[in-house]
Amino acid sequence: MKIKRALLSVWKKDGIVELGEFLSEHGIELISTGGTQKVLEDGGLEVTSIGDITGSGAVMDGRVKTLHPKIFGGILADRKNENHLNDLTSLGGFEIDLVVVNFYPFVQEAVEKNLDPADAIEFIDIGGPSMIRAAAKNYHSVTALCEPELYADFMDTFTVNENDIPLTFRKKAAMKVFQMTTAYEAAIAQFLSEEEDILPDTIILPLEKSAELRYGENPHQKAAFYLTDGKSPDWVQHQGKTLSYNNYADMESAWNIPQGFDAIACVIIKHANPCGFGLGENPLEAYERAVSTDPVSYFGGIVGFNCKVDETVAEALVQPFLECVIAPAYTQAALKIFERKKNLRIVESPDVRMGQELSVKSVAGGFLCQEKDRQQDELEILETVTKKYPTVKENKAIELGWKLVRHVKSNAIVFAGENQLLGVGAGQMSRIDSVKIAIRKVKEAGLDLRGAVMASDAFFPFPDSIELAAKTGISAVVQPGGSIKDESVIQRADELQISMVFTGTRHFLH
Amino acid sequence: MKIKRALLSVWKKDGIVELGEFLSEHGIELISTGGTQKVLEDGGLEVTSIGDITGSGAVMDGRVKTLHPKIFGGILADRKNENHLNDLTSLGGFEIDLVVVNFYPFVQEAVEKNLDPADAIEFIDIGGPSMIRAAAKNYHSVTALCEPELYADFMDTFTVNENDIPLTFRKKAAMKVFQMTTAYEAAIAQFLSEEEDILPDTIILPLEKSAELRYGENPHQKAAFYLTDGKSPDWVQHQGKTLSYNNYADMESAWNIPQGFDAIACVIIKHANPCGFGLGENPLEAYERAVSTDPVSYFGGIVGFNCKVDETVAEALVQPFLECVIAPAYTQAALKIFERKKNLRIVESPDVRMGQELSVKSVAGGFLCQEKDRQQDELEILETVTKKYPTVKENKAIELGWKLVRHVKSNAIVFAGENQLLGVGAGQMSRIDSVKIAIRKVKEAGLDLRGAVMASDAFFPFPDSIELAAKTGISAVVQPGGSIKDESVIQRADELQISMVFTGTRHFLH
Repeated sequence: MKIKRALLSVWKKDGIVELGEFLSEHGIELISTGGTQKVLEDGGLEVTSIGDITGSGAVMDGRVKTLHPKIFGGILADRKNENHLNDLTSLGGFEIDLVVVNFYPFVQEAVEKNLDPADAIEFIDIGGPSMIRAAAKNYHSVTALCEPELYADFMDTFTVNENDIPLTFRKKAAMKVFQMTTAYEAAIAQFLSEEEDILPDTIILPLEKSAELRYGENPHQKAAFYLTDGKSPDWVQHQGKTLSYNNYADMESAWNIPQGFDAIACVIIKHANPCGFGLGENPLEAYERAVSTDPVSYFGGIVGFNCKVDETVAEALVQPFLECVIAPAYTQAALKIFERKKNLRIVESPDVRMGQELSVKSVAGGFLCQEKDRQQDELEILETVTKKYPTVKENKAIELGWKLVRHVKSNAIVFAGENQLLGVGAGQMSRIDSVKIAIRKVKEAGLDLRGAVMASDAFFPFPDSIELAAKTGISAVVQPGGSIKDESVIQRADELQISMVFTGTRHFLH
Repeated sequence: MKIKRALLSVWKKDGIVELGEFLSEHGIELISTGGTQKVLEDGGLEVTSIGDITGSGAVMDGRVKTLHPKIFGGILADRKNENHLNDLTSLGGFEIDLVVVNFYPFVQEAVEKNLDPADAIEFIDIGGPSMIRAAAKNYHSVTALCEPELYADFMDTFTVNENDIPLTFRKKAAMKVFQMTTAYEAAIAQFLSEEEDILPDTIILPLEKSAELRYGENPHQKAAFYLTDGKSPDWVQHQGKTLSYNNYADMESAWNIPQGFDAIACVIIKHANPCGFGLGENPLEAYERAVSTDPVSYFGGIVGFNCKVDETVAEALVQPFLECVIAPAYTQAALKIFERKKNLRIVESPDVRMGQELSVKSVAGGFLCQEKDRQQDELEILETVTKKYPTVKENKAIELGWKLVRHVKSNAIVFAGENQLLGVGAGQMSRIDSVKIAIRKVKEAGLDLRGAVMASDAFFPFPDSIELAAKTGISAVVQPGGSIKDESVIQRADELQISMVFTGTRHFLH
């Protein structure tokens, strides 16, 4: 099945003249229209105009150019079906064996330029998708090329096979057509959707591979990182090994946790939980406090800052084994120091909140979609429920603990001082277990809980956790409240002379 | 802008005659072709044939029916643009103000029936999408209806507005068109994709809302459960409150963990971790063993079985507060007993593995996609690395522990006997912390670790965890191995007269 005739109609003009020359040299007739025709003719090529075939030029400012039975018959005829070929002849059409089409780039032209809908719709291509879809449908007889990236491969294949393009090539090219139209249709649907609802009836996620990963959570699991159509990663990587699956998973927390603070802050993430956090006058002080939370577990962690990383802290960061550092900026001198540790991943992300508003997670054969847990204004409306009110110092620790406990897997308990995280009790099936773990961790780290604050991501079902924590010398508790036993929990806090504030908001995280 | 002429061409015929009658009664001309025309005429309606307009019937077995400038000009003309209207007149066409089109159902007809590609492509509609896309593009002038579900709303709107359909309606209808074409194109791309790779360059997820949820992980987060186009949930719910976000998240583990065993098995999930697991001669015995793992934390859990739930265990399940029960089947008598507990969710899922092969998770502005962690054949190739070999009884506990530890959040440690889970150390930032937690939990539950097995989801970096566990009386350890300190870990196990097997496979889970 040799190609005798090709229809070319493209928005992206790169490579089109070269392709046209190649086809011409092999005696293939070129059919085209509008801008593509002009570019080909300017390139010295002979072109049959679509208007000459259909008998009419572009009408309605180009809205109806190619939508004609002679064109579509020529693309859609099954070459092995005698009736189809007879029908084509009686239509006055002829076979079109190669269709090269790409469209008005809707995302760049309409979405990114924030056009009014009335103007944006001019970028919804009708004829182009119709032609390339028709060619892709008929891939048993026709070759459909929808991207300039495919031209070189096409020409090689053409040469090797002496103009008898293999079915496997045509089928793969057809698949690419439908991948492209899917993304195109999704972008238009998204643009026309005015729903404020972040959870509409239909959510279309056209994902494009951004990075191959060596493996997933474990070496036997294949994995890749994808971005939605047209997006770029929210960061640059200066050096180090390529990011791993678990790096990607932890990077968002490593970035977002320090961003929640005005002061210079540093967090260390390990197995999806913060295992260290500190505030400081400078990055080094913040980092050293973060390390002191758990001077054993921070090994191999991901370290996040909310400030420019300077050479002083860089010197400290290259001492132990760490997986990754992420920060909004680095000094040149710091970057120089990191070069001594070739494998250490250094990631720079600009000063914006990382991650989309919608969380998506595959479970039970479907997808759970939810708003991300961004609410933080509950710190403005804390309610003290005990007789004793928190001191200024305790209030600072309450803020620190409350901003961190939401990032710890549930059931979550943290102990906090005014400048650092003191201990973490993560991921337990009962709340008091998390309390016990956090207390033990604080002791093992040689830290002091006197005057510290306990923060809990959900209410205490019984007073026992308060009793346990009180023995360590803590002086305040922050928790959502809302248990049917609240009254006895408050009473016990009063008896133990501990202040307690309710936030009203639970922060489970799994 | 009144509708004077309507083009109807639908695969789904439901409601089309009623809509045709409504339009006719309001003096609107009906244009149609093929099967739709026949149904309308059989319904006693007068219809203009598309063939009469274009001057040719359906050619090439219907491949080219509607792709004609008179039709597309009539749909695409901007009614406010004098030039467009003049062009339309010179084409010999006339305005088409309402387009009602839906397509060959590609998923049901081609994908689900496993058609050969050569037959499947007949279900790739070209004319239909071209027409409805044209109408949707021109929504400032035209109304596009792509689903029978929209007819009633359309007729109401038509009546209320006396045939002057508001722009907001037309825009929303246009958006639905592009949502539908996105899903359609995605299904075709998927079908044509022959890549074995589960992580191709492009992954398109067209999600349709399956269930509104009261809220997400927390009450202030909106959430919904979505399925990919055309799928149904893998279960039925017999009774109880609607499933919550956290129920959905835990259901897959509650289903899959017992499925990993041949014997009758029961698991209890709490905060995304198994907090109890037992095997038994019958469901009650398995359940009672699962409860005994942690007789405090199982409260409020999700209980999963791999067998038919009978009335005996049902009587036990209605005693405490539980969130949900999931099993492949229930006896009628058991269902009767559950009715006494109106809120308890009873979910039945057939005997297939729940959940897709691909795991998708939104992080850091993008999406991590990976193969699910399904590998389990490492139990066939265990390597004993100590002088002592596990006994038959220990081997049973090794199997049980190893099949469970992969479902516990990392770092994960479990202690297992031959018939039940004895203790869980979940979600810690250092491995030895998980060991400490698991040991404490076993003691608190009043269970005995003599002769039990410790399972670890990843290697031990130091011998300290083995020393700690040995003091409890355990007699075997199962772990992946692979630490640079393996030799000293093995040596310590030998000294402590513990047998240890390596699986070679890590199972992190976050």
